[in-house]
Amino acid sequence: MANSRFGYVRDFETHDTLLPQTYIVVRIDGKKFHEFSKHYDFAKPNDERALRLMNACAKNVVMQYRTDLILAYGESDEYSFILRRDSALFNRRSDKIATLFVSLFTANYVSLWPKFFTDRALDGKHLPYFDSRCVVYPNLTAVKDYLSWRFVDTHINNLYNTAFWQLIQKCGMTPQESENRLSGTVSSEKQEILFKDCGINYNNEPEMFKKGSLVTNKGAILHIDVIKQIDELFEEF
Amino acid sequence: MANSRFGYVRDFETHDTLLPQTYIVVRIDGKKFHEFSKHYDFAKPNDERALRLMNACAKNVVMQYRTDLILAYGESDEYSFILRRDSALFNRRSDKIATLFVSLFTANYVSLWPKFFTDRALDGKHLPYFDSRCVVYPNLTAVKDYLSWRFVDTHINNLYNTAFWQLIQKCGMTPQESENRLSGTVSSEKQEILFKDCGINYNNEPEMFKKGSLVTNKGAILHIDVIKQIDELFEEF
Amino acid sequence: MANSRFGYVRDFETHDTLLPQTYIVVRIDGKKFHEFSKHYDFAKPNDERALRLMNACAKNVVMQYRTDLILAYGESDEYSFILRRDSALFNRRSDKIATLFVSLFTANYVSLWPKFFTDRALDGKHLPYFDSRCVVYPNLTAVKDYLSWRFVDTHINNLYNTAFWQLIQKCGMTPQESENRLSGTVSSEKQEILFKDCGINYNNEPEMFKKGSLVTNKGAILHIDVIKQIDELFEEF
Amino acid sequence: MANSRFGYVRDFETHDTLLPQTYIVVRIDGKKFHEFSKHYDFAKPNDERALRLMNACAKNVVMQYRTDLILAYGESDEYSFILRRDSALFNRRSDKIATLFVSLFTANYVSLWPKFFTDRALDGKHLPYFDSRCVVYPNLTAVKDYLSWRFVDTHINNLYNTAFWQLIQKCGMTPQESENRLSGTVSSEKQEILFKDCGINYNNEPEMFKKGSLVTNKGAILHIDVIKQIDELFEEF
Repeated sequence: MANSRFGYVRDFETHDTLLPQTYIVVRIDGKKFHEFSKHYDFAKPNDERALRLMNACAKNVVMQYRTDLILAYGESDEYSFILRRDSALFNRRSDKIATLFVSLFTANYVSLWPKFFTDRALDGKHLPYFDSRCVVYPNLTAVKDYLSWRFVDTHINNLYNTAFWQLIQKCGMTPQESENRLSGTVSSEKQEILFKDCGINYNNEPEMFKKGSLVTNKGAILHIDVIKQIDELFEEF
Repeated sequence: MANSRFGYVRDFETHDTLLPQTYIVVRIDGKKFHEFSKHYDFAKPNDERALRLMNACAKNVVMQYRTDLILAYGESDEYSFILRRDSALFNRRSDKIATLFVSLFTANYVSLWPKFFTDRALDGKHLPYFDSRCVVYPNLTAVKDYLSWRFVDTHINNLYNTAFWQLIQKCGMTPQESENRLSGTVSSEKQEILFKDCGINYNNEPEMFKKGSLVTNKGAILHIDVIKQIDELFEEF
Repeated sequence: MANSRFGYVRDFETHDTLLPQTYIVVRIDGKKFHEFSKHYDFAKPNDERALRLMNACAKNVVMQYRTDLILAYGESDEYSFILRRDSALFNRRSDKIATLFVSLFTANYVSLWPKFFTDRALDGKHLPYFDSRCVVYPNLTAVKDYLSWRFVDTHINNLYNTAFWQLIQKCGMTPQESENRLSGTVSSEKQEILFKDCGINYNNEPEMFKKGSLVTNKGAILHIDVIKQIDELFEEF
Repeated sequence: MANSRFGYVRDFETHDTLLPQTYIVVRIDGKKFHEFSKHYDFAKPNDERALRLMNACAKNVVMQYRTDLILAYGESDEYSFILRRDSALFNRRSDKIATLFVSLFTANYVSLWPKFFTDRALDGKHLPYFDSRCVVYPNLTAVKDYLSWRFVDTHINNLYNTAFWQLIQKCGMTPQESENRLSGTVSSEKQEILFKDCGINYNNEPEMFKKGSLVTNKGAILHIDVIKQIDELFEEF
């Protein structure tokens, strides 16, 4: 950047360097996706095209930074990228990592949209965008627990949403009635409601809905029980 | 987010809140745009389509957050957004502001590309992306100096690039010869070289190239002498 | 520091530089001073020796850093030091400023103790110590409001404490009875209670108790209405 | 703190919380101790009274926070306190930890001075004070390497200082001559110079000088080969 008598304004800039030897997690999260998904008539509770689009974006980000990444995991409109403990990406500058990941992800989302939503173009008034943050975890147990946390979140949200929407779509309940029916129920009760009221065996729901999507650093997209396989996933790292 | 025994991992998250009563500047900067512009055959030293595309993206970001914004200013592959001193946007959380701005900007860039580059589609292997940072300025003088700094930068860069490329395109110099010719020259000498060697009066160059682009918070796009009008620009703020 | 194969551990250090062109406030606050003051039988509600000791310590800190300081203000077991907007002290490193101020203040407190508490030595099991923090204020109004905030705090606390202890000492109330008597009363009512129940005209209380202590950067110690004189206090800064 | 219309100034305060599950190191370092030690005629290269005073202060700090501390290690005018990975002291707030440790250490230093410097009182114009910082280390290897780094530093500094001062005191060199003599020498050469020129076997120097001082969390003060015993030192942690 050119020098001038105004150049002193650079002194106001600060850089946050993430602690060395820690696992960096970058979590990207859709902004106002409730509204966005309504506008583009996403299927409820899960829109397969939208999930596959998210996975394709994540895969491209993983491929671009594969030497720094362990894996990525996503559900709904969020994706977490887990970097290696020894990654020196962008000198571990928090703002660089958070903003470049979200920008690349967004570019992919808009660019790949027509491939997944073949009959509906994006319109400029309703564009997708995401926030992003970096969090560091100092040890393997903590970063495994982070991933397990997102996996449990996927399960809990998907079970609730599946039951909520099936009660509406299959049993003709209003959203309020459906909410009331599910209020205070534990997982097993929700599964029972799904089975008895809607004739749906939750176990037969698509794996991608139930388990979220995991992108390996070789680019494979898996829908697996993350908690059961947590040790294998981090074996080399 | 759902609770579970893994929920403690949230305790590792931190939030940086930007100092109240300061002007927030969000600066977005193209990542590897040298390579990107080469791949898509941008005209040198300035590609009008690319600049108009940047301006259109910036305008859309300004319009979305217009109540919080004073103005935006851009040149080449960068854009600065200046927020009001009293803005409470995203509770002044630095990561939210930096990442949502860059994500929305990127979504616009990819989405609007075909409107400005009518004969060349973006390909998925070469997508545009940007980094982004927040800097705060505690008083009006400092934030005016920030804007002046970027304006001077535009001038210096554009004069150099114009002379550099004209010596190549008009006088048949190699890049190395052109660099040598300009080495150590001050502004007036560069203008003289342009005039004598290439027959180009720098004053007649397009305003957008010489002055960059300023987006008002009403969405007007101006190419003005920012330093001369610096007081008017911040009059209401 | 010597180099060795272990020297990489320095990479884990971080430095927080305080935003340029902002007023830095360093506030020092006694740790467990309730216990400390009890152990050394401080007079209640105010111990004149303890306040004068605090003032002497603050004055010495002010004198040491007088070119960087505007003023200091204290009450009870706390003291605030206000630095000039353009101070470059310790390169504006937050940890350096906070720790060196508190260390110097503490050294003075222990060293000067015998001068103010002539009949009671400090014992090693009950030493005074303080925490310290830096806060930055981006403009003159905000930093004036900071000082006003501490001044109002002095007034409110001292009026309450004076009434609370007089009801106990003069009227023989228990602490609980005194607390109940004052509960929910506004300032004027507390003054009335003091006058009617205890025969004390709050206006005649010592200025140092009612107004706190202000140390100018020339080392004068004043007990003045800070809010009334707020503009004069910052006139040169 | 009392509320008032000025209470908004609290919004400018920020708190830095240290990353959970990391080892916190608090390092305290004498400010202008070169000058301070000269003023009080400290013996060169090591003043035993001064080192024992530092150790006594460190021990008192360790005893006060023993449930949170693993150990402390010091040399010359610095001391490092290593906290347990799971310490929740002051909610892991960086400023609280750094400032309270340094304040307590300083209070002890001034208070204990007469016990170690029996023939020379501190004067108010030359008081000791220290800076302090917190650094976090994410794993046991890194925190062991931190301690090893300080230990190596002790060795290198003490060997140099011993040789430097002996050449002056025993051989009548000027400081400049002594510096020249040692310039570019490695450890073994310095030991040889000490032996041949000054008749001093470095191995016979006091352990406290050669190895620094380690305070266990039970309060024992040891002068041991920290690197050789590094694993035992952290065994329980």
